[in-house]
Amino acid sequence: MKTPDHSPADEAFMREALALAAQSIGLSEPNPRVGCVIATAAGQVLGRGFTQEAGGPHAEVMALRDAAAKGRDVRGATAYVTLEPCSHHGRTPPCCDALIAAGLGRVVAASQDPNPLVAGNGSERLRANGMAVTTGLLADESRELNIGFFSRMLRRRPWVRLKSAISLDGRTALENGQSQWITSEAARTDGHAFRKRAGAILTGVGTVLEDDPRLDVRLVETPKQPLRVIVDSRLETPPTAKILQPPGQVLLYAAVHDKGREAALKAHGAEIAFAPGLSGKVDLPSMLTDLAQRGVNELHVEAGHKLSGSFVREGLVDELLVYQAPTLVGLGQGLASFGPLETLADALALRFVSIERLGPDLRLIARPPGREHF
Amino acid sequence: MKTPDHSPADEAFMREALALAAQSIGLSEPNPRVGCVIATAAGQVLGRGFTQEAGGPHAEVMALRDAAAKGRDVRGATAYVTLEPCSHHGRTPPCCDALIAAGLGRVVAASQDPNPLVAGNGSERLRANGMAVTTGLLADESRELNIGFFSRMLRRRPWVRLKSAISLDGRTALENGQSQWITSEAARTDGHAFRKRAGAILTGVGTVLEDDPRLDVRLVETPKQPLRVIVDSRLETPPTAKILQPPGQVLLYAAVHDKGREAALKAHGAEIAFAPGLSGKVDLPSMLTDLAQRGVNELHVEAGHKLSGSFVREGLVDELLVYQAPTLVGLGQGLASFGPLETLADALALRFVSIERLGPDLRLIARPPGREHF
Repeated sequence: MKTPDHSPADEAFMREALALAAQSIGLSEPNPRVGCVIATAAGQVLGRGFTQEAGGPHAEVMALRDAAAKGRDVRGATAYVTLEPCSHHGRTPPCCDALIAAGLGRVVAASQDPNPLVAGNGSERLRANGMAVTTGLLADESRELNIGFFSRMLRRRPWVRLKSAISLDGRTALENGQSQWITSEAARTDGHAFRKRAGAILTGVGTVLEDDPRLDVRLVETPKQPLRVIVDSRLETPPTAKILQPPGQVLLYAAVHDKGREAALKAHGAEIAFAPGLSGKVDLPSMLTDLAQRGVNELHVEAGHKLSGSFVREGLVDELLVYQAPTLVGLGQGLASFGPLETLADALALRFVSIERLGPDLRLIARPPGREHF
Repeated sequence: MKTPDHSPADEAFMREALALAAQSIGLSEPNPRVGCVIATAAGQVLGRGFTQEAGGPHAEVMALRDAAAKGRDVRGATAYVTLEPCSHHGRTPPCCDALIAAGLGRVVAASQDPNPLVAGNGSERLRANGMAVTTGLLADESRELNIGFFSRMLRRRPWVRLKSAISLDGRTALENGQSQWITSEAARTDGHAFRKRAGAILTGVGTVLEDDPRLDVRLVETPKQPLRVIVDSRLETPPTAKILQPPGQVLLYAAVHDKGREAALKAHGAEIAFAPGLSGKVDLPSMLTDLAQRGVNELHVEAGHKLSGSFVREGLVDELLVYQAPTLVGLGQGLASFGPLETLADALALRFVSIERLGPDLRLIARPPGREHF
């Protein structure tokens, strides 16, 4: 079946639905970010909604409730929804059923749901109940907003975003370790907005021992704190580390057992998982699989050059998020230690997908070419 | 005297004169880049010109010749010129006299000539001959086009532009020295456009020994090759080095004498200057003073991390020209070796003045804040 054309009005409503979906960032995890606009053929908006916290109502139900609260009749109207309505009973009843029960006439979905439990079943069910259904309008935008959810559903691992703050000459810290602050407050605030959108924020025990960071979301408002993850092969995180203090969960990945340390860390609220790899180190791919099973869509990595280098070396980086300050530091620590390479052909090739000024600094987003295609 | 207002037509003609001035890039050295438009009050352009090679006619004379060749009467017209017309006999007669003789009625100059031999004398002379003269229209643009000339006139040293091609993680080369090519052809071509505009291209003997570069202008057309300069304290440049081969002059700065090496290098066409500093190394500030005396306005530095680090450490860098490729190299050579610093407050603070995409790469231009104010 060919994707039908959509009208400019259809596109405008879908853009509004996408803007609504963006309000689910930091809220709906592990569920996807979805927005819904219900409108008449004449162009009147009847209701708007976006997906709430896990277990709460999805976008379609929120939009139906909004219309009902305003006393508007949605029968025969069109629902613009950024992801195919779900057809299965999760923690909430299927959205398809709600749309059918409300008597809508048409559903325009941006992208098909990658969840194998849905994946076209939602559209099928709507059609079987007499509704006109089209998919594909602004599909790329919807997929991009949920790149982590798509990654988890299709690749069974999170979308891995490696964040770094560097000088113009590529230094993340002085040789003595000082790194506060390479970049400006504008850049750090933006970095917290990226932390907020992640299902988990990950660092290594080296950074915990050297910088003692909190790794929570402070500079922007958030309805909840992401999971904080420490790669800590030998469980060297001090139970007094600041990262264990803020509200929210902390998860350590270890490679070796140590009853005493485990008990001390658990007593401070940390959870410990084991992902043993070669030579007593955490196996990063196993850890990513486990994080996906725990519902992490986007993984935000803020680590030192050694762990960052391991992610690069093992081909696990999906996206680089680099804040670059207009300074020269000279000798100092690098972004990611791997190699030395024998030839430049072996360098990790990326593609700039976004370049923005943030106050005095730059924000560069780069991905391996085609990395988002899975 | 207050700077009078200018009309939109005045500004349009001055912008055209600036565009003409840009055609002097790579041509007029060591003279400034100047453009001239002669127009009537009714808005008809009578003649256009820009400064030719040293010893050749200046912009005003070119514009007068253009008008004469077209049989146009310039009496009473306005000359829009991007730099105050010269009033002294250099290799050519003063442009003031040519404008006066031609009977122009008005001169609009973008900026005053920083040359102490002119510096207001040109305007004075024109006024004394009954001409209306204003200065200051698009003065910043004109000064920026001639930043090197202004630097040489006012600071007695060239404008030092440090060029580097780096990966996203700030590497200019692998640990084994391989650096060809970090960036794309689009970036390299742009780099040659910057070489072309320089009075001299400078590198260190380390780069000559490791990479054996030509350091000439090849990827863009140029009327002449800039001077090539090697910082070579102990005269280790092999007489067979490629940098000695292309057309144009080569100048080596040494710190110690060595009759045999000097003779061999001179036999291959190189000139040798001495600028001895501490511990047997070339004194960079003395070298810059000498280069200014030789007429170098913009100095284009393409050096390894050690010599680049010396320029940074000694506070001699006026501008960073960085081509950044979206790649990760891991371990490798840095942009500039200096430090290690004790605190980030000691880092060289810069300000991004330009950020452009060049094919897959970025071009970043950064300057120490206020560096252009002298």
